[in-house]
Amino acid sequence: MTNAHDYAKTHKEQFLEQLKDWVHIPSISTDPTRKGDVQRAAEWLAADMRRVGIENVEVLPTAGHPVVYGDWLNAGADKPTVLVYGHYDVQPADMEDGWDSNPFEPVERDGKIYARGSSDDKGQAFIHIKAAESLLTNGGKFPVNVKFLIEGEEEIGSEHLVTFVTANRDRLKSDICVISDGAILSIDQPAIVYALRGLVYMELEVHGPSQDLHSGGFGGTVHNPAQALAEIITALHNPDGSVSVPGFYDDVVPLSDEERAELRKTDWAVSDWQAATGASQPWGEAAYTLRERIGARPTLEINGFASGFYGTGAKTVLPAKALAKISCRLVANQNPEKIYQLVRDYVAKITPPTIRSEVRMIHRGDPALVELHIPAMQAAISAYEKGWGKRPVFMREGGSIPIVADFRRELGVPVILMGFGLHTDGAHGPNEHFTIEMFYKGIDTAIHFYEDVAQIKS
Amino acid sequence: MTNAHDYAKTHKEQFLEQLKDWVHIPSISTDPTRKGDVQRAAEWLAADMRRVGIENVEVLPTAGHPVVYGDWLNAGADKPTVLVYGHYDVQPADMEDGWDSNPFEPVERDGKIYARGSSDDKGQAFIHIKAAESLLTNGGKFPVNVKFLIEGEEEIGSEHLVTFVTANRDRLKSDICVISDGAILSIDQPAIVYALRGLVYMELEVHGPSQDLHSGGFGGTVHNPAQALAEIITALHNPDGSVSVPGFYDDVVPLSDEERAELRKTDWAVSDWQAATGASQPWGEAAYTLRERIGARPTLEINGFASGFYGTGAKTVLPAKALAKISCRLVANQNPEKIYQLVRDYVAKITPPTIRSEVRMIHRGDPALVELHIPAMQAAISAYEKGWGKRPVFMREGGSIPIVADFRRELGVPVILMGFGLHTDGAHGPNEHFTIEMFYKGIDTAIHFYEDVAQIKS
Repeated sequence: MTNAHDYAKTHKEQFLEQLKDWVHIPSISTDPTRKGDVQRAAEWLAADMRRVGIENVEVLPTAGHPVVYGDWLNAGADKPTVLVYGHYDVQPADMEDGWDSNPFEPVERDGKIYARGSSDDKGQAFIHIKAAESLLTNGGKFPVNVKFLIEGEEEIGSEHLVTFVTANRDRLKSDICVISDGAILSIDQPAIVYALRGLVYMELEVHGPSQDLHSGGFGGTVHNPAQALAEIITALHNPDGSVSVPGFYDDVVPLSDEERAELRKTDWAVSDWQAATGASQPWGEAAYTLRERIGARPTLEINGFASGFYGTGAKTVLPAKALAKISCRLVANQNPEKIYQLVRDYVAKITPPTIRSEVRMIHRGDPALVELHIPAMQAAISAYEKGWGKRPVFMREGGSIPIVADFRRELGVPVILMGFGLHTDGAHGPNEHFTIEMFYKGIDTAIHFYEDVAQIKS
Repeated sequence: MTNAHDYAKTHKEQFLEQLKDWVHIPSISTDPTRKGDVQRAAEWLAADMRRVGIENVEVLPTAGHPVVYGDWLNAGADKPTVLVYGHYDVQPADMEDGWDSNPFEPVERDGKIYARGSSDDKGQAFIHIKAAESLLTNGGKFPVNVKFLIEGEEEIGSEHLVTFVTANRDRLKSDICVISDGAILSIDQPAIVYALRGLVYMELEVHGPSQDLHSGGFGGTVHNPAQALAEIITALHNPDGSVSVPGFYDDVVPLSDEERAELRKTDWAVSDWQAATGASQPWGEAAYTLRERIGARPTLEINGFASGFYGTGAKTVLPAKALAKISCRLVANQNPEKIYQLVRDYVAKITPPTIRSEVRMIHRGDPALVELHIPAMQAAISAYEKGWGKRPVFMREGGSIPIVADFRRELGVPVILMGFGLHTDGAHGPNEHFTIEMFYKGIDTAIHFYEDVAQIKS
């Protein structure tokens, strides 16, 4: 065991307290009223990076929320350069969504820290900052050259990051990219994700009368926009759970028998799925296993909708309009822009003349597939074996990190996805939490990763 | 012209200013935080009633919001007693619903007064108070005995009024009941409504996962509750616009050819319907005219729904639940409780095993049909002829005043519906308003009504 591993062990309580400070800042990137908090979270991170010895730390403006950059490039020209990506912005969170405690007042319960961003992604990004602290404070040296790029717009589609990456190709030049923003299979079974779904997020709005009407005075003669929206939503799926939009599956590459066999090793038992979701029984494409439905099949999901009156009590209104948020998760070889056009055109086609409808694209991201047999992947496998104590399995992930495809395209680097969270962490939902033991193990594993990457011959 | 009519003319500006004071009080009965305002609106009314000479005025508590009662019984035992019913509570109203001005800061524009409650029903109820003022102040005598019953729970189903009426049968004993809480055909064409639809207001809730989930991590395996709710809502209508709930139409009495001929006289031109609704083209049961669909056919309307995320931006959530507010308007001979049971049972039957659903009844009211050939109706016809200058037509109304059926049942009195509003007043929607000229004409017509009723031989 090296000194950096010892340092991480003896400082773990301080690391946790620092993380609590950071997640306390409500850096909700989608909420314009939180712009100041997003900036504050960026500056908090930059200050900590400077404190631990990372060099050239800057909070760099973009057309949206800023990017935090820092590097340490003194390992020598013969050593690889690792680009570490993460994000400091978080999803919205309100007590009324079902939180048991204030989402921005972190609390420890049962070995977990509960707070928005504790797992996605402040906690996981912070693992790399604390690995850096352990390496730099204790010996003053990183085994590889390293560049940190922690952004503030991941939860709203990394809208301005591609522009930033393209404009800073030289500064970001590197050999390997590592991202910790995901889940492993269980606390006892590490996993490396080699496929990510893409995303296209849309808004579907239906308009009927020019204003809300009295449901008694007009009901029966007006095509109710809430009902019309429900009718359109219903028509977006077939009874078998597949998406009914014509052409939706055209570009999906069929899974090989070999890959299906590999994925079957990690498939969910229905009882585990029930425990994780709280739902009564699975739904979806029966020809595919649960893992395949999530990792290897595209979906169309209703993220929410609203129309008319939905408060306590009664209001006999016939609403003027209805709005739904709809997102499609996409798999490798599917194009978000094309899928948006297919959905838009299909909705236009099935919209009856009694109402008006509109589908708007909010944001999008490409799907990604990562190479399995490269040295950087071997370093990640080795790091998990040493830091976590078990060889990782390979998985397809249902979520989206669009920047993975962007990094490959813009910087030409392989992207290694070393998740340190769990699917049960409640990312994007109420009571998001991070298992403290996984935070500590993650720091140790990250130090091993940097040490193992240093062995790669260029 | 009697002195009372002159008094009303010379005091019309004061009457309007008084009405503005009253509508300024946000007496939203469905909103628990407005309980104090509801009470305040009752007390304001009671004070004005005392001021104009109405006797025995009391603000009487119920298990919900109070009832305002007052009477003047000095016309003599040979004169009929008229029970005047109205309500001082209003629908919810928020600027964000599309109001051009604060709904509780009344403003005059283009000969109209804009405010929540200006038409439904403070403005119309106040017409009778001002008719009373004109009669009592100017001569000190009403031509008939009169009892005023102005309640505070009409917009939430008059939940406690039936109990109040039953417990106060003697106090409310009367020969005729008059209600002004509706619309006439146009400012140039008065109308008397002889049929009202009943109502059953329900809440449909769908539950899936135990909490909101990440749409990437779980999407494709979970039956999305927003989608499931949309599917259930879609299944509640047939493609031809009729309600698909089995048994829904069983108790509807078919319209006679004679009644259809009478209703056709007042049917809407599509262009007028378009002007009133702002919708592109009519929808609904093609075998029935627009007026028949509204007045003579039961409906099932989505008053609103909500699920998951529907704010600005994007949140990739798979919601845990979805809620819809659903109300059925019912016609004579239909029973609200039975219709609730039919809807509840049908929803249970079509709910798939992948989700849970629940239908709860919020409130209900019986439909009503009023006699056309009684002396009180002749007095109303005559009053409109004198006060409005034109003979009224007879109409079926799409809205619901459940208390009409309750009064008939509990007190055994005929109920005359003398509306002074318009369907375009925006009752229940944004920018509710009342045409000032109709407020003035209404007061004059109400005075004529009391004078004409006094001629009825007992």
